[in-house]
Amino acid sequence: MNKSIGIVGAGIGGLHLALYLQQHGIQATVLTDRTPEQYASARLMNTVAHHSVTIARENELGVNHWDDAATIYHHHDHFFNFPGNGLLFRGAFKKPSRAVDYRMYLPALMKDFEDRGGSIEYASIQDDDIPALVSRFDLLVVSTGKGALGRMFTHRPELSPYSQPQRLLCVGLYDGVDHGSPDGDDPRGVTLSVSPGHGEMIVIPTLSFNGMKTALLMENIPGGDMADLVSLSYDADPAAFRQTILDKLEKHHPHTYNRIDTHRFGLAQPLDLLQGAVVPTVRQSSVAFDGEKFAVALGDVHSVVDPLMGQGANIASYAAFELGKAIVETVAFDARFVEEVDRARENRVFAAARWTNLMLRPPSEAMGRLILTMAQDRELCDEFTDNFNYPERQWDRVATDKRIHAWIDRRAPLAA
Amino acid sequence: MNKSIGIVGAGIGGLHLALYLQQHGIQATVLTDRTPEQYASARLMNTVAHHSVTIARENELGVNHWDDAATIYHHHDHFFNFPGNGLLFRGAFKKPSRAVDYRMYLPALMKDFEDRGGSIEYASIQDDDIPALVSRFDLLVVSTGKGALGRMFTHRPELSPYSQPQRLLCVGLYDGVDHGSPDGDDPRGVTLSVSPGHGEMIVIPTLSFNGMKTALLMENIPGGDMADLVSLSYDADPAAFRQTILDKLEKHHPHTYNRIDTHRFGLAQPLDLLQGAVVPTVRQSSVAFDGEKFAVALGDVHSVVDPLMGQGANIASYAAFELGKAIVETVAFDARFVEEVDRARENRVFAAARWTNLMLRPPSEAMGRLILTMAQDRELCDEFTDNFNYPERQWDRVATDKRIHAWIDRRAPLAA
Repeated sequence: MNKSIGIVGAGIGGLHLALYLQQHGIQATVLTDRTPEQYASARLMNTVAHHSVTIARENELGVNHWDDAATIYHHHDHFFNFPGNGLLFRGAFKKPSRAVDYRMYLPALMKDFEDRGGSIEYASIQDDDIPALVSRFDLLVVSTGKGALGRMFTHRPELSPYSQPQRLLCVGLYDGVDHGSPDGDDPRGVTLSVSPGHGEMIVIPTLSFNGMKTALLMENIPGGDMADLVSLSYDADPAAFRQTILDKLEKHHPHTYNRIDTHRFGLAQPLDLLQGAVVPTVRQSSVAFDGEKFAVALGDVHSVVDPLMGQGANIASYAAFELGKAIVETVAFDARFVEEVDRARENRVFAAARWTNLMLRPPSEAMGRLILTMAQDRELCDEFTDNFNYPERQWDRVATDKRIHAWIDRRAPLAA
Repeated sequence: MNKSIGIVGAGIGGLHLALYLQQHGIQATVLTDRTPEQYASARLMNTVAHHSVTIARENELGVNHWDDAATIYHHHDHFFNFPGNGLLFRGAFKKPSRAVDYRMYLPALMKDFEDRGGSIEYASIQDDDIPALVSRFDLLVVSTGKGALGRMFTHRPELSPYSQPQRLLCVGLYDGVDHGSPDGDDPRGVTLSVSPGHGEMIVIPTLSFNGMKTALLMENIPGGDMADLVSLSYDADPAAFRQTILDKLEKHHPHTYNRIDTHRFGLAQPLDLLQGAVVPTVRQSSVAFDGEKFAVALGDVHSVVDPLMGQGANIASYAAFELGKAIVETVAFDARFVEEVDRARENRVFAAARWTNLMLRPPSEAMGRLILTMAQDRELCDEFTDNFNYPERQWDRVATDKRIHAWIDRRAPLAA
């Protein structure tokens, strides 16, 4: 069977799928409205960590250009800004994670795809273009929520509990923040810092244009003391912006503040700032055209999560591989195909959404117990940490208070 | 976690689950309204073949009391009563199948369960009993469609295309039918005989009370020439019944008729006859009580299929093992648990229903091509035959005409 696949969108989902298909002898065409040069010169798009399961997929695709001890990190430090000195504890990954600026990452993968003979077409898709696209390809994969194609996939309310953003984001790449070193006594890690009632900050060592920077992904609760950072203008007054950030960090995230060299601190570049918010949303996984052809949603179009748990890119890559395997194996792009794609991917994709949505809520008593137990039980915290690779395992453990208690209690006899 | 499981119903699903849990250290209580003695003296319940995947589960449970070359069979002979000599061809299993009368099989497994310390309670469940049952167990498994419990699981119309039976069944165990021998030139096999427009007959070598008998599972199309057999009384006039059957076989299933020793032919015992019909129906897989506790459907309560493709018992056993694994692994019997059970079992369970429902329809042009190709391509027919073990693979191949053509065409270059 000759298979003609159109992939709209050149994010990680679309590119991992395109490269996977290329590697398996299926020529996909990528359609995107942004050239590699436009990606490279754009505003910061996100701050994304790739966990080891995603890095393994990059190795399989032969696109891991950042296999370098200088970029990877090994653990999560959890800090809770409780009265006194706060609560600080660590959980380690079995294999390291790594963050690379997508303004470098995506153009590199586009180049890989083109260098290997892949075709990328640059166009913005309008409503009028859809019928021609549908008839041109055997299967259309939609991996961008922008525009006419993204709107086709309807919202699934039973999997989308929020109608408003739960966090107001202020995300930037900064100089002057110590996030550990690749070979020192303090190995490189991510910090998950919580200011109860005000929000979280994820501190991620990130490779960007001029070497390693630190992403400060501030997840601020609407109405909290840091909420206004979502609209604080950097361009209007860079110095005031910098000072406000420092003041807020000192008050709410002192563990990170104490690792800042205030003389060097500041946005790495003026465009290294992203402010906004996300409504976590799960959408239908496919659309049928005349009962004959299908478009399949991939990545954020299918499920967009708040970045709090760092799941979006990892599940997009995961889903791309599951979709890719199904495309390689199938003999028809029909309802059965869509069903098999969903069966393959939805446990992990939905678990990432549900787990993230849970963590956006104030912690239950059971979640509080889990946090306090992890602070004293390194193996438990290691398991929690490594489950960032396997959100379905995390969800099995935290889906209800009863499950959280059972997880802790099952470990208690081992610890005793 | 101490797990208390109540299993209502002592069919293959309930018993395989009870034995699986017992083997894994979880004590389940089986509740049934029939004693082993009542099973043994009952009217013929069905004519069920266990395929090798089911026999492997029996071996795992240590309940394969019929591991005997004298009972197994190795192939399907397909006969189509086309004008002339008809069309006859064979497909083989990779590993043999076997049919044992459930009036022997179920009591033997009940005894195994009790001999190993399991508890079976004999009672008929009424509506009033449900609240007490729910509170007594951590999880209730309902594996009988009879009575108050079965009615709780609502019909799923999107998976249940028929509102009426598609075949009128006349099923019996007979003496005097040659179905091959365990060690002769003509190895033992099942025959799938089709009389276009009138129905099918499945001829199954079956171990019953007095040794090997032959099940004649007549699947007669309403309005066809054999439809009246569903209500033909044996008791009123055994000789007339016998002669009518012989006459119909001679006309519609001559390949089998030619293997009958008419002097010996007849029902093995007066109770070895079952007449009736099935509306293929898929039901909800679970019911929640106050959002706290769940009852899970297993076997026919979840999906009852027409016996045409011999899937019912095999998928009930399969689903029992998947449910058993989930019970062993879980820390809570909650919505997530039910979701994981469904994810584990529903591809095969639904595929068995869909494939059977498809085969109940007049063959499409593509299905006709498949039949004619299998008649000439033994490997293709072997694959079709072995897929009786894996209905989800069969469904991948036959779900649409396009898939059927693709399956044939993919094999064509190999054959050329």
